Amino acid sequence: MKTKQTIYSLLLFFVLLLCFGCNGKATSNKKENDQNPNVIIIYVDDMGYGDLSSFGNPTVYTPHLDKMAAEGMKLSQFYVAAPVCSPSRAALLTGAYPKRVGLEKGVLFPQSVTGLNPEEQTIAEVLKGKKYSTACIGKWHLGHQEKFLPHNQGFDEFFGIPFSNDMSKKEQEYMGRNDYKWQLPLLSQSDTLELDPDQTTLTKRLTERAMTFIKKNSEKPFFLYLAHPMPHIPIYASPKFQNTSVRGPYGDTIEEIDWSVGQILETLKTTGIDENTFVIFTSDNGPWKVFKTEGGSAGPLRGAKGTTWEGGQRVPCIVRWPGKVPAGYVQRQVITNMDLLPTVANLCGAQLPKRKIDGRDVSKALLGADRKLESSPFLYYASNGKLEGIRDGKYKLLVLDEGTFLFDLESDISEEYNLFEKHSEKVNALREKMKKLDSIITLERRTVGSL
Amino acid sequence: MKTKQTIYSLLLFFVLLLCFGCNGKATSNKKENDQNPNVIIIYVDDMGYGDLSSFGNPTVYTPHLDKMAAEGMKLSQFYVAAPVCSPSRAALLTGAYPKRVGLEKGVLFPQSVTGLNPEEQTIAEVLKGKKYSTACIGKWHLGHQEKFLPHNQGFDEFFGIPFSNDMSKKEQEYMGRNDYKWQLPLLSQSDTLELDPDQTTLTKRLTERAMTFIKKNSEKPFFLYLAHPMPHIPIYASPKFQNTSVRGPYGDTIEEIDWSVGQILETLKTTGIDENTFVIFTSDNGPWKVFKTEGGSAGPLRGAKGTTWEGGQRVPCIVRWPGKVPAGYVQRQVITNMDLLPTVANLCGAQLPKRKIDGRDVSKALLGADRKLESSPFLYYASNGKLEGIRDGKYKLLVLDEGTFLFDLESDISEEYNLFEKHSEKVNALREKMKKLDSIITLERRTVGSL
Repeated sequence: MKTKQTIYSLLLFFVLLLCFGCNGKATSNKKENDQNPNVIIIYVDDMGYGDLSSFGNPTVYTPHLDKMAAEGMKLSQFYVAAPVCSPSRAALLTGAYPKRVGLEKGVLFPQSVTGLNPEEQTIAEVLKGKKYSTACIGKWHLGHQEKFLPHNQGFDEFFGIPFSNDMSKKEQEYMGRNDYKWQLPLLSQSDTLELDPDQTTLTKRLTERAMTFIKKNSEKPFFLYLAHPMPHIPIYASPKFQNTSVRGPYGDTIEEIDWSVGQILETLKTTGIDENTFVIFTSDNGPWKVFKTEGGSAGPLRGAKGTTWEGGQRVPCIVRWPGKVPAGYVQRQVITNMDLLPTVANLCGAQLPKRKIDGRDVSKALLGADRKLESSPFLYYASNGKLEGIRDGKYKLLVLDEGTFLFDLESDISEEYNLFEKHSEKVNALREKMKKLDSIITLERRTVGSL
Repeated sequence: MKTKQTIYSLLLFFVLLLCFGCNGKATSNKKENDQNPNVIIIYVDDMGYGDLSSFGNPTVYTPHLDKMAAEGMKLSQFYVAAPVCSPSRAALLTGAYPKRVGLEKGVLFPQSVTGLNPEEQTIAEVLKGKKYSTACIGKWHLGHQEKFLPHNQGFDEFFGIPFSNDMSKKEQEYMGRNDYKWQLPLLSQSDTLELDPDQTTLTKRLTERAMTFIKKNSEKPFFLYLAHPMPHIPIYASPKFQNTSVRGPYGDTIEEIDWSVGQILETLKTTGIDENTFVIFTSDNGPWKVFKTEGGSAGPLRGAKGTTWEGGQRVPCIVRWPGKVPAGYVQRQVITNMDLLPTVANLCGAQLPKRKIDGRDVSKALLGADRKLESSPFLYYASNGKLEGIRDGKYKLLVLDEGTFLFDLESDISEEYNLFEKHSEKVNALREKMKKLDSIITLERRTVGSL
């Protein structure tokens, strides 16, 4: 009898070991979180399509982002809805074309009295409906007046700068302008903590702040929007990264951002929420190439920041969610930053905004490698808000002052071979489609936020 | 006593399990092979720096090569010693500048009566000294006369075509030339098996032949040189790959080559020699861009095949050797195809050729991620053999009919910003160095093989 008891005890022990030991991770006590994954969007400023090693850069060293791509998915045809900052961020956070929310014309400046309308619903507000803790850490640039600041757009916390890091007297003087009077503030909610903060410390301070937020919220669902102000010109890196990159000062800056991503992912691991967190890394628009080697690279793409060539609006994008997003896969479907709001809403079981948006739920494309996405046309608006082009399937029509262009973006990845004369019917059909889609948005255009 | 015996037996069982079960692979019976790793060089034709997903291509699907890069090392500054085929192959196989072996002027044609001098020692001959089995499967292009064929250059086996796949009456007629009289032969050793073989079957047939060679030699050390004739124009893929790529016919061809690499790596696994095989994948020169979308992409690099801009001579390169080459690392050191002979010789414990070569042993850079390589100047020779430039450290001097250029290749990856006027001293120093190094090679130049 004793032997039998011992055998039963041993069997029970092994069964329990199998249940709780090996599958410990899967049956953790964070049951609630499993249905409410944490969401982190890391949105950097002016990083080009070709600035990461995993996107083909030969000299920048980005091991953490390369690893993130190897463990997650690289999106090779990911677009932002504008080639400049404020409208791109409006599109990201609202899931709508900047024109739909009245923010398509250029960027906001320290003298601006407009901003993203508080009536618009951001990703943060969508997730507040599911009781997520939310933080915006970094650069906002959707209105620096009190009523437009992050805490009025669904973010519990804001720590960062309200507009671009060159929008200060100090930086503009360095860049040759003497009539600029504003200083760059570092804000906590709407309180100014510092004026003209030491920008060499920014990437590090924002990273640490983000890590604190993650740790504080590791037991409940959260949404972190970490918007690094760099590598927007002027570029800065902390002393530890200065003069370390073979790519020069721009490389130092990228490599510190890469370090930052490593810190964020490491924090997810140490807090045990790695497998319950959906992380997206991308950029707000293409590289600011007028600054030559101080600016980044669009890789094989034509054009840069401020243009509707691919280099202006197609940006690197990596998503990672262990066990959910297939590892090492390259997703070549056309996906845009407007798609993130409905995608995140679906993944988190949250309600979509009541106002009309333009993004689509692309969770199937992100979670299953082989899922095909129905093609959807994408409109290109210039930095002044003017409609300039459309991508529909593999074709792109671009109507510029310098000419009309038709490209097959799948076989002609660098927009080198104009098919305009060969395919006049296609040109006409696309021109009609583009105008029609834009006219609907124009009709439905909502008002920008104003004081 | 019995209980004690049982416990000892159990302990012994577990110890044996640990020794033979878990570490079975490491303690295999291929002890001899451990000191004589197999070497596979996959050398494709005219694939550009930007044609692989892991090197930034947005539309080509290359999962096997991406995986090879994730499991191995990506070389982001890897050069071939010529922007066209025959001299590039001469450099690869001899470890010397094409000029040193008298093969720097253009490529060989069906009417050529010259070839790589049989007096030169190839990688195959170097490894024959260690009793390796050797095979050249694919395109040779170092002389199609009997005395220049692979079996006279250290290869036990040759199966493939002796020159480029467009060098036939059929293909040249398609490309607009009617005065061409030669046919493309498919050879086994020096026997013509077929004339104008069905090129849609080539990638597949060569792959199968390579797999057979690997299987046949899995118990003893071997060197396989698999030189795919594609994606050189005309491009072909087998029916299974035709019209499957979003990148068009060129993409179909690349994706079949990717499949081929997958098959080779899989064969290493199934034959149990994966961990004892050093595999190198690279291209003979940049993309043939005059054929527009029928040709490939140089990614962020300027220029293409036939030019001494980076796009002509910097090519994608991936090396893999599980447990030896660090996984997922990007090596940014300047390494060239001439370095492969001395590196392979070192890794396999073989003797270097007695004749002077230009390559360096870079095994430390390939085996240890952090090992720094001493910088060594690299000379750029035009496709007609004329000296046109030098890279020394991060600087490249290029002297062309259209002007003189000085670039910082580390921060200006696309050769966009000419520093010629800013750094005249550097220009002069590099010009002197380039002439001096070339004059030594000119003095030491050996004779090309002739009938």
